[in-house]
Amino acid sequence: MKAYQEMTARELQSEYAAVLEQFHQKKALGLKLNMSRGKPGRDQLDMVSDLLAVLTDPDECFDEGTDVRNYGELGGIPSAKALFADILGCRPEECLIGGNASLQLMYDLVSKGYTHGLLHSPQPWCREETLRWLCPAPGYDRHFRITESFGFELITIPMTPEGPDMDAVEAWVKDPSVKGIWCVPKYSNPDGIVYSDETVRRMAALKPAAPDFALMWDNAYCVHEFSRPFEPFADILSLCREAGNPDMVYEFASTSKITFPGAGISVMAASEDNLRYLLKLIGVQIISFDKVNQLRHVRYLQDKEHTLALMQRHARILAPKFAAVLEILEREIGPRGIARWQRPEGGYFISLFTLPGLAKRTLALCKEAGVVMTGPGATYPYGIDPDDSNIRIAPTLPPAGELRQAAEVLCVSLRLAALEQLLAQG
Amino acid sequence: MKAYQEMTARELQSEYAAVLEQFHQKKALGLKLNMSRGKPGRDQLDMVSDLLAVLTDPDECFDEGTDVRNYGELGGIPSAKALFADILGCRPEECLIGGNASLQLMYDLVSKGYTHGLLHSPQPWCREETLRWLCPAPGYDRHFRITESFGFELITIPMTPEGPDMDAVEAWVKDPSVKGIWCVPKYSNPDGIVYSDETVRRMAALKPAAPDFALMWDNAYCVHEFSRPFEPFADILSLCREAGNPDMVYEFASTSKITFPGAGISVMAASEDNLRYLLKLIGVQIISFDKVNQLRHVRYLQDKEHTLALMQRHARILAPKFAAVLEILEREIGPRGIARWQRPEGGYFISLFTLPGLAKRTLALCKEAGVVMTGPGATYPYGIDPDDSNIRIAPTLPPAGELRQAAEVLCVSLRLAALEQLLAQG
Repeated sequence: MKAYQEMTARELQSEYAAVLEQFHQKKALGLKLNMSRGKPGRDQLDMVSDLLAVLTDPDECFDEGTDVRNYGELGGIPSAKALFADILGCRPEECLIGGNASLQLMYDLVSKGYTHGLLHSPQPWCREETLRWLCPAPGYDRHFRITESFGFELITIPMTPEGPDMDAVEAWVKDPSVKGIWCVPKYSNPDGIVYSDETVRRMAALKPAAPDFALMWDNAYCVHEFSRPFEPFADILSLCREAGNPDMVYEFASTSKITFPGAGISVMAASEDNLRYLLKLIGVQIISFDKVNQLRHVRYLQDKEHTLALMQRHARILAPKFAAVLEILEREIGPRGIARWQRPEGGYFISLFTLPGLAKRTLALCKEAGVVMTGPGATYPYGIDPDDSNIRIAPTLPPAGELRQAAEVLCVSLRLAALEQLLAQG
Repeated sequence: MKAYQEMTARELQSEYAAVLEQFHQKKALGLKLNMSRGKPGRDQLDMVSDLLAVLTDPDECFDEGTDVRNYGELGGIPSAKALFADILGCRPEECLIGGNASLQLMYDLVSKGYTHGLLHSPQPWCREETLRWLCPAPGYDRHFRITESFGFELITIPMTPEGPDMDAVEAWVKDPSVKGIWCVPKYSNPDGIVYSDETVRRMAALKPAAPDFALMWDNAYCVHEFSRPFEPFADILSLCREAGNPDMVYEFASTSKITFPGAGISVMAASEDNLRYLLKLIGVQIISFDKVNQLRHVRYLQDKEHTLALMQRHARILAPKFAAVLEILEREIGPRGIARWQRPEGGYFISLFTLPGLAKRTLALCKEAGVVMTGPGATYPYGIDPDDSNIRIAPTLPPAGELRQAAEVLCVSLRLAALEQLLAQG
């Protein structure tokens, strides 16, 4: 099989006719498939549904003497802090246990920086003339949208196979209007890149001009290997402390992809000084988070080791889904030379880079054939992919059969888009 | 028994000696009692703990086809909207179902007004020179603290037996810097006042100068009668709509004092236009609230009628506690003429008004004798009670025996404080 760029005009015409025919066949199936969001599938949810029944006795609703059903314990129950400290490698007293969404903890941190300022802010961010935020891209659209919503100018930082381009980050943080950076350090969304030791070390040792620069360390996939055993990862809080930046970092994690995406618990890990400052502000907002659900999760997950064993059971469901998509990509796209991709070993996404100018058209064709994908550009600041190239594939939700169909639609759509472009250029 | 003001100097001296002796006896008991917060007691929590076990089967985790365990349904599940609409008398499509804390919904509304503006805001509140907020007082300290935290000037509105002084409210809302008002319309915190029909009607018909004036209607005790059957109450959303103010009002409620204070669900009811606007902002903050807990509550509470029956069971626990405190107040304080109070029929508090200048000293004496009460001034803006008179009693948490002891300590402390004052003046 030839790469498309090596085909003659006649070969391209003939390939175009064949692929167009395939596309119409797919379209005629009247599919309604969705590979747009990183949602676990129903089999994963059923697998962890014992969670619902681990805490039903009123006499068991206590954690070190605290009745988890009543008000109180703003920072979370001790056993939940211990659990997350065990998983993240930090100290229990550095953990604040939140509600069902780590995204809300992130949003609220940025919001409080904006309305009240963070611990070392000279003034609330809403009083600053210019606000900038570093966005390694491709990245997570919901991260970018938070800082965009607060009026930050979003600065794109290129991603490398080692993580964000640290030369660019180190240069940008010299600008005092740069107030923070979004990071997904392990199995980055969408590329599945694990930041290298060197990247993590340089990140912890940043010397930002802004005294209130926030290293937003969204460790969303901290235990989310699907094709290998748990890979230990540095504790960013220790590294920042050792580098003289104890209050620069805010680490986030949750059980959203361990138990239930909509009904898990979350954590923000930060220096004790940071937590002391933030709890004063958070105490105005809420009396306490849902401690019944915190205790329910502690009873169900127990500790890091037991959690890792559960993650291996998730992996057994997820690995074949990723393998299926990768196999179809290799077969259908590989030989045509019209896209490249990583083979992630954890996380929830596969990130496809097409030749420039093909992503939008490919996704429009997918939609036409009944397959909803993450929108074009979503992985870049402001939703604008400068190369119109990146496509985020979320293979976890659909059952295996549907997933294969969806991946095939994606491949036919991409081939068609590439052929249209080549013929138009021809 | 004589009122203290009618006593001779000699009688006062003798009474002082007797009360001081009583105080020392109480103090010698080494009590550690708490009447500071409106928390249900353990017997109430145990009574509703079947909630923990109503949703344990994975096949039951669906609400109109939505898997409540997964992401999605930002505005809440349909059955939870229907439940709250039933309870509040509004429409399901006017309900947004939140997490475990209505306080967080209120905070977030003020916060979003500040950072982004509400639906009819000319600009975000953080861009305004002056911000004012109306605070009927005595009122809820956590309400006041939210607006204080965002830099609002807090304007005290006197409370009357009919609710907030509406002449004062109508005069103040002519000031365009007045952006909202805090209301607890049924069994107000702390007075237990139910706003009269006339008050509610005038509130709904306000003509504020600020186009984005927010009527914050915290219906925290909407079904919380403890000494009479459920008392129907007007739907503020309809009244505002009929008065031409459909977007002025935000109503809040929760199950915090129906099921678990720390692990219930909450609601914000507002016009559909308001919800459409707010959901766009909230969608940046969170993917969805805890829908498993929403469905758990729907299964447990079922509907308004079933919820009201449960509230009558709470009432059977609460009524004797309120009766005990009121009886002790009547006996120990009534004849002395040194304080007045309401006899609430619902809610979580008794509000005591001492003669001016006694509240701080009384609460200091209580503390000395091992009884923690809500801090002096807490029921007023900035924590400053101009008359140093109001004491909030929260009789719900302590078991009956402890409660009687605590109430007796309070009465002895108040008598001692009154006698000290009278003797000093003498």
